[in-house]
Amino acid sequence: MLSEKIIKNLEKIVGKPYISQKKEDLLCYSYDATQLMYLPEAVIFPNSAQKIAEILKLANQYRFPVVPRGAGSGMSGGAVPIRNGVVLAMNRLNRILEIDEKNMWVWVEPGVVTGDLQKTVAEKGLFYPPDPASLSFCTIGGNVAECAGGPRAVKYGVTKDYVLALEVVLPTGEIIHTGHKTIKGVTGYDLTSLFIGSEGTLGVFTKILLRLLPLPPTKATILLNLPRLNLLSSLLEQFLHLAERPAAMEFVDDLCRACIEHQIQFALPPGEGLLLLETDGSPEIVELMLEKITKIAKQTGAEVVTIERGEKADQLWEIRRSISPAVFQLGSEKSSHDIVVPCAQILPMIEKIKQIRNKWKLPVLCFGHIGDGNLHVNIMYNSGDISKAEAVTEEVIRVTLALGGTITGEHGIGLTKARFLPWEIEPNTLKVMQKIKCTLDPNNILNSGKIFLEEKT
Amino acid sequence: MLSEKIIKNLEKIVGKPYISQKKEDLLCYSYDATQLMYLPEAVIFPNSAQKIAEILKLANQYRFPVVPRGAGSGMSGGAVPIRNGVVLAMNRLNRILEIDEKNMWVWVEPGVVTGDLQKTVAEKGLFYPPDPASLSFCTIGGNVAECAGGPRAVKYGVTKDYVLALEVVLPTGEIIHTGHKTIKGVTGYDLTSLFIGSEGTLGVFTKILLRLLPLPPTKATILLNLPRLNLLSSLLEQFLHLAERPAAMEFVDDLCRACIEHQIQFALPPGEGLLLLETDGSPEIVELMLEKITKIAKQTGAEVVTIERGEKADQLWEIRRSISPAVFQLGSEKSSHDIVVPCAQILPMIEKIKQIRNKWKLPVLCFGHIGDGNLHVNIMYNSGDISKAEAVTEEVIRVTLALGGTITGEHGIGLTKARFLPWEIEPNTLKVMQKIKCTLDPNNILNSGKIFLEEKT
Ligand SMILES: Cc1cc2nc3c(=O)[nH]c(=O)nc-3n(C[C@H](O)[C@H](O)[C@H](O)COP(=O)(O)OP(=O)(O)OC[C@H]3O[C@@H](n4cnc5c(N)ncnc54)[C@H](O)[C@@H]3O)c2cc1C
Ligand SMILES: Cc1cc2nc3c(=O)[nH]c(=O)nc-3n(C[C@H](O)[C@H](O)[C@H](O)COP(=O)(O)OP(=O)(O)OC[C@H]3O[C@@H](n4cnc5c(N)ncnc54)[C@H](O)[C@@H]3O)c2cc1C
Repeated sequence: MLSEKIIKNLEKIVGKPYISQKKEDLLCYSYDATQLMYLPEAVIFPNSAQKIAEILKLANQYRFPVVPRGAGSGMSGGAVPIRNGVVLAMNRLNRILEIDEKNMWVWVEPGVVTGDLQKTVAEKGLFYPPDPASLSFCTIGGNVAECAGGPRAVKYGVTKDYVLALEVVLPTGEIIHTGHKTIKGVTGYDLTSLFIGSEGTLGVFTKILLRLLPLPPTKATILLNLPRLNLLSSLLEQFLHLAERPAAMEFVDDLCRACIEHQIQFALPPGEGLLLLETDGSPEIVELMLEKITKIAKQTGAEVVTIERGEKADQLWEIRRSISPAVFQLGSEKSSHDIVVPCAQILPMIEKIKQIRNKWKLPVLCFGHIGDGNLHVNIMYNSGDISKAEAVTEEVIRVTLALGGTITGEHGIGLTKARFLPWEIEPNTLKVMQKIKCTLDPNNILNSGKIFLEEKT
Repeated sequence: MLSEKIIKNLEKIVGKPYISQKKEDLLCYSYDATQLMYLPEAVIFPNSAQKIAEILKLANQYRFPVVPRGAGSGMSGGAVPIRNGVVLAMNRLNRILEIDEKNMWVWVEPGVVTGDLQKTVAEKGLFYPPDPASLSFCTIGGNVAECAGGPRAVKYGVTKDYVLALEVVLPTGEIIHTGHKTIKGVTGYDLTSLFIGSEGTLGVFTKILLRLLPLPPTKATILLNLPRLNLLSSLLEQFLHLAERPAAMEFVDDLCRACIEHQIQFALPPGEGLLLLETDGSPEIVELMLEKITKIAKQTGAEVVTIERGEKADQLWEIRRSISPAVFQLGSEKSSHDIVVPCAQILPMIEKIKQIRNKWKLPVLCFGHIGDGNLHVNIMYNSGDISKAEAVTEEVIRVTLALGGTITGEHGIGLTKARFLPWEIEPNTLKVMQKIKCTLDPNNILNSGKIFLEEKT
């Protein structure tokens, strides 16, 4: 419980207008995209690392929980204040601080929206590749905390491949600086990487240095129809063994296809799945890639539905983006997973999902970034079927692990996957993670109760 | 001191033939490429993670130091047994365990020589990009421990960009497994990255899973002459802003050029530096890149000396590789640094080096991977000039830091840079690193005395 004394102290730190205990504010900061909901006791809006440091020192003094929060778009409950306490909202730390065009980097505050950053640097001919589907609202701070990915990961990697340096407020209130302005740099331990993907449990990011690339001058998108699902393995293998990587490779299964088919302007031939590929770079290279992809597709038995260049290519991506909302046709509730399997196991995984679907008579569907093995598996159900959906979840996770995969590729463990973490990670390894948490956060102040299952306190 | 009892116990673990206390063996394992030398009390050759675990448990019981060692090619004293004790030689853990061509990965033991791995996977059309100049003798374990780089880092990144998963024996003897078989994966903290670059102080790697790429079908190398050094900034900026990256960009300064000029088969026009660029990929792309590079070079005022394709391109690299031995013409001793500065600071850095050279009247030269800002600065001197060389070292490091750089790009801190680490990294950040060391190695058994300056014990 936050005593009046604590609140007074917090007000002193940030100023009265920047802390709220109003019910409507608490509600707004109580949930994320999982729709789990726990009310915080206060929401606080600091505008500097120093103030966050003071808040955390106070939290250690009075032992109240603090939960960092970006846009609340997380898919695993990371920003949900499960133990109440204070939500540390990043809304005011939302400036793009410095774009260095020559060195191709940018300093940002954590509350900058990913899509805004992309647009701003694109105006200068620069490119920030990570592209979570949530980019129009999620924040860079949240992206770093989850190590967010997206379709372009197959060629460009994920958030961690772009973070050069961090300013971090430790759970105990010290401010540290990690990393380098350069791609190379091996001075001491790689703390930057340790903080990336730490889901708000090891520190609060207050400044982030991101590496940029030159903006690819051209791109094109190609939509393939798979008359039979089992073409997928051979296609994937050939595409991944090309000397140059496609920029994205997205898969859409039969159920997803059925949900979105009526929205597509052109007729699709009959088939068991779709593949959407993007290629980018110099115009000559894009054309060469299209040629190679078309040739492989035809030789393997897939059909080229359409090829789009430039702006029109973006339109094709709407098909892919429309899946998430469209699948609610199949059930009012969704249990969503972002498992990853080695690429050669993608087809076996999708076939297993179909078996599970048939066995449980629930619409279990999948789509996603198969170029890097990352499948979004959605279990659609109605509220009566919750225990069935849970059983399906367990089966999906068991199959993933049996195929050598991992239970989350980009959404994180948070609350919703914490139960399954020990299924994947052995006790000795988990113990090392928990020891690190304990070393940096001895009083278990920062986003406690996340990632690791704990005894009920 | 290792008592007889300890030796008996070690013999029990590995078998008598696999431990030595012979003077000649101790000598062989007493130094690395820095030529620092400390005799260990025993060298031990385990052949499994289990045996290493037992050795480390024993070391914790009796408190003797243990130093992991690959090929001893390290440039910062990492494998030197400064506190004597036991050297843990990786020689017998030298198998390539499993190449998965479809998923493009390989499991190796740490003692595999980097160049052998590259050749073996190349026979299957696969590519392991990191290419330290020491690749014909250094080991993958040492590469992971130092996060080794090389000329290709500008396009392909460094060792950490290829390590997917690790088997690690902790300093206290537990065996853990980190990482994933897939590129994406965010289950818990990124321990893999924490271990990469930890210089043998946080754990012993016993199995390493490396990601591979398709082998580029073609490559070409282009040698440019810079009539004036100050063309460098503009050239570098234009090359780095190309839509596709050159695979390597190496610089050779005037002093280095003078040392190797007589070995080159063709005449070089007069100039203040050389640039060696490589481009790789599909043949069409390689040709396109050569065209673009040539055009930029000519427009900026650099001269294209020669362009070589295929095998002949490799020959051109001999020019670059011959620098290291050739510079001993300028002094019998070498103090070598691998500083990194942001790319826009490369020219100012090189100009500063020239000023330092003139000020101290010592041959201070530089060459290296300027595509990623990584310059090898060598101070050549004769034994009488050691204190002068030390003063120059300090100046080089101060200038590097003043230009926003970092003191080591790929060679690590080890012993030789430990004194300078606090010049770059602030106390709070260092404290976090040391806390992590202490958490994982409470008795300070594993490679203690490295990275962090300690009170004399
Ligand atoms: C429609 C939709 C599509 C999505 N698509 C993708 C996708 O394609 N790829 C993908 O990877 N994810 C995707 N996500 C998930 C989500 O958008 C990402 O996880 C994103 O990174 C979360 O950012 P956020 O700002 O909303 O963070 P929040 O949800 O507010 O927080 C997420 C975690 O980050 C921590 N955190 C936030 N800010 C900081 C900070 N400054 N310092 C330390 N910790 C902090 C929080 O404590 C929490 O643990 C999607 C979500 C939705 C709703
Ligand atoms: C001529 C020459 C050229 C070089 N060029 C380059 C270059 O271009 N790029 C570059 O990055 N480096 C270069 N180096 C430096 C060196 O080769 C690298 O640092 C290499 O990674 C060291 O590998 P090694 O097997 O020799 O390791 P060692 O020197 O034996 O050990 C290095 C460190 O790794 C630790 N270690 C070794 N094996 C393990 C293990 N299994 N588990 C845990 N820790 C372990 C040791 O304790 C030590 O701290 C060069 C060196 C020479 C002599």
